[in-house]
Amino acid sequence: MTAQDMLATVDLGSNSFRLQICHNQNGHLQVVDSIKEMVRLAAGLDDQKNLDQSSQQRALDCLARFGERLRGFSPDQVRAVATNTFRVAKNISQFMPLAEAKLGFPIDIIAGREEARLIYTGVVHTLPPKGENMLVIDIGGGSTEFVIGHELQPAITESLSLGCVSYSMRFFPRGKINNKNFQAAVNSARAEIQRISVALKNIGWGYAIGTSGSARSIRDVIAAGDESIDAITAAQMQKIASRIITAGSTKKARLEGLKPDRLEVFAGGLAVMTAAFAELNIREMTITDAALRDGVFYDMIGRQLGDDMRNQTIADFQKRYHVDTIQAQRVATLAQMIFSHLTASISSDHPEQWQQYVRWGALLHEIGLDISHTGFHKHAAYILDQADMPGFSRKEQHILATLVLGQRGDLRKIAEFSQQEMLWLGILSLRLAVLFCRARQDIQIPVNHCDIHYHKNSHQLLISLDKEWLQHNPLTASALLQESVLWQKIGLQLEIKAI
Amino acid sequence: MTAQDMLATVDLGSNSFRLQICHNQNGHLQVVDSIKEMVRLAAGLDDQKNLDQSSQQRALDCLARFGERLRGFSPDQVRAVATNTFRVAKNISQFMPLAEAKLGFPIDIIAGREEARLIYTGVVHTLPPKGENMLVIDIGGGSTEFVIGHELQPAITESLSLGCVSYSMRFFPRGKINNKNFQAAVNSARAEIQRISVALKNIGWGYAIGTSGSARSIRDVIAAGDESIDAITAAQMQKIASRIITAGSTKKARLEGLKPDRLEVFAGGLAVMTAAFAELNIREMTITDAALRDGVFYDMIGRQLGDDMRNQTIADFQKRYHVDTIQAQRVATLAQMIFSHLTASISSDHPEQWQQYVRWGALLHEIGLDISHTGFHKHAAYILDQADMPGFSRKEQHILATLVLGQRGDLRKIAEFSQQEMLWLGILSLRLAVLFCRARQDIQIPVNHCDIHYHKNSHQLLISLDKEWLQHNPLTASALLQESVLWQKIGLQLEIKAI
Repeated sequence: MTAQDMLATVDLGSNSFRLQICHNQNGHLQVVDSIKEMVRLAAGLDDQKNLDQSSQQRALDCLARFGERLRGFSPDQVRAVATNTFRVAKNISQFMPLAEAKLGFPIDIIAGREEARLIYTGVVHTLPPKGENMLVIDIGGGSTEFVIGHELQPAITESLSLGCVSYSMRFFPRGKINNKNFQAAVNSARAEIQRISVALKNIGWGYAIGTSGSARSIRDVIAAGDESIDAITAAQMQKIASRIITAGSTKKARLEGLKPDRLEVFAGGLAVMTAAFAELNIREMTITDAALRDGVFYDMIGRQLGDDMRNQTIADFQKRYHVDTIQAQRVATLAQMIFSHLTASISSDHPEQWQQYVRWGALLHEIGLDISHTGFHKHAAYILDQADMPGFSRKEQHILATLVLGQRGDLRKIAEFSQQEMLWLGILSLRLAVLFCRARQDIQIPVNHCDIHYHKNSHQLLISLDKEWLQHNPLTASALLQESVLWQKIGLQLEIKAI
Repeated sequence: MTAQDMLATVDLGSNSFRLQICHNQNGHLQVVDSIKEMVRLAAGLDDQKNLDQSSQQRALDCLARFGERLRGFSPDQVRAVATNTFRVAKNISQFMPLAEAKLGFPIDIIAGREEARLIYTGVVHTLPPKGENMLVIDIGGGSTEFVIGHELQPAITESLSLGCVSYSMRFFPRGKINNKNFQAAVNSARAEIQRISVALKNIGWGYAIGTSGSARSIRDVIAAGDESIDAITAAQMQKIASRIITAGSTKKARLEGLKPDRLEVFAGGLAVMTAAFAELNIREMTITDAALRDGVFYDMIGRQLGDDMRNQTIADFQKRYHVDTIQAQRVATLAQMIFSHLTASISSDHPEQWQQYVRWGALLHEIGLDISHTGFHKHAAYILDQADMPGFSRKEQHILATLVLGQRGDLRKIAEFSQQEMLWLGILSLRLAVLFCRARQDIQIPVNHCDIHYHKNSHQLLISLDKEWLQHNPLTASALLQESVLWQKIGLQLEIKAI
């Protein structure tokens, strides 16, 4: 076992941050090292949903420690994902560069549904399949994920803004709990869960699994009272709630089996779980240790084995938004070819990754037509920025959105990316491919008389094309000239040479 | 024939403004009066796409004259539509209130594809059907529409930013025309048309029809040379272009048959038509007088007869964006019922129209789920603002967008509409309907013990509900309380009373 066989996952939750280092043993994970810190980030959100200074500091200190442990890991070996508090904090864009610098690796903020998918991936690789649908509920610090699945792919993924930290703070300030505020918390959670309950019930499930610290701590408290019980039921939760309400706080209830670091957030998690049981008519729930970080691990392995969820998502999106797949493939092939030429002499951290982004961007560059022809590149960018895209991080979605936004029209909107060489070369590749393929027919460019070169130092781009071909394709020739005028405006010399 | 049988259509194009007053004779139109003014609005767009002062003044003067002619008409009898220059002018929102005040009626800015659909509607009601697909091309001042259809519904509608005014200004400044700038204009137009040519050719057509002033003037010049010819061909256009290029300007070419008011814009229209013939391999094109204004007339009649294109669009959108139609209908029925109660004592110009908007908004309130669950109300608003919605004006689309945006969440975003009573009562109705239907099941509210009243003067809303029902539906009860807190913040007292 060498360091090169290791994979590290970092899970930046709203309650805790975790680092897990694993060894890939024929597709199963063996944990080598694991660190958990109760950063309780969600508690640092103020009324305006800004992360306050002290919570930022707690997070950065923790990330610095994780970063130390990860020294020597290559970027391919590490994936860091961040969830609800990162999604909702208004000032997150100022915080992210600091966080990534401390960790030493990029951090992907993932959408709620993507979080749900990854949790399910973790569970399904850990629990033996039972042949029935499985409901997985993960109560986090700021959001709760609901997934139903049967085999490897989940059938439905949902994420709601309910969490053990946020609910404890909102309904039980200073830890005081009485019948009224506990019921208010349960009712509020039920009203949220009601939004999705019919969809979940329509699919149905044979058994329910809980995956989070909240679920585990409820099970622990139940088991401490009666060791023969290894599952959560509504009746048992009711008993625990009564004890807390009678005592007036979780602390005063002195629940056996409850770890001290769960004291502050236990009641919020209990209210959410009680609501889930009531709203979904769950009879009992067993607990598994599998979690988001395990799903991230299996997702990394899948990508290494060529079974990349993201390819499936691209195909799904082509279908959902009624894409002309032949044209999309035509543009993708040409865009990748141009991109290879342009970046041949450029050193980048992740050349293959950028090849993928260019291909994916090209495969989806026309999805905006499903909204309107007018400004379709803007609509495509909107969808890619906003949609749930299984397998993609928010940052990756934004890269794709930027690529498709740049596919046509004025270039001032991309002038800001002039320092991000791979990104604007990707945009350039996509634009040229779209331009050459505008007639929506296969094009024959004489290979021996076509060349494209990018001179990095002089910021010059030279496209050499067969003279005769240019004469026979006057529309493309005139479009190329117009294109060079647009690039000139933002400082790139694009020269078309007839040879 | 009385004034009440008249319908007036106002067509505010980029080149000319037209008022047409018609009589509806069993579904066919008989023109009673018609006024045309060459406002040439597109020529008033500056580099920043702002309408300059003098063109605004020309437009307002013309609208005042139209307004005078329309005195005594009721709003139901008049529809004014505005096209490309209104779509693209950046300062249009300041201009619109002035324009509507002068005309005395609302003006609908319509999208390019809606314009194409209405043109086709005009043509298909005027020309006897030939059993083959028909291609209609309408070269306007600022945009050109392409439609292929067979029966009443067009199969494909496209709109491109090419126009006789904009092309004349861009390629032939001061009217000077030579071989080079004419070819540049044709090539530029071909490159645009190329974007849609494969789609048009795939559907195919048996004959081509031209509908605009540009098409008519080209035909007139051809016919002036040889009276036996009544159609446009590429060869004849080539001859005319040669004469203009040789002479150096349209004016110097002294073309017989060309009306003086077309002199300035003829060459731009000729270049666009030449490009369309070349790119689409059109053999010949005949001309019809039917136009946008006729389509608007037939659309108005259709609405009166209950055959409203907009209902079809709503159904199409439910399908395209995978809407749960049962839930949508449930919410729509309840929202309309609440809206009727709320507006019973309010006088408004168009109560039925607002009923329709509330119903349509409810039928589409969940389309945003097709992009993402997170913020789906915002995505729905985005789609409704941006999409091509046959039958709807831009203003109507924005009303629907505002309704669905207000369906949930904070109300500060709608505080700005506090003066638009019908709009915010519509939002309130939709919110309450969504709230009551959250469980996605048919709800039974005891009719005898449910009432809703709006007291306009005290800005108070009272919802009375059966006590027992409220007790049995604690989630709805608590959601109603939360709702009243939100409305309180923007100044409305929403009181829930158990009876």
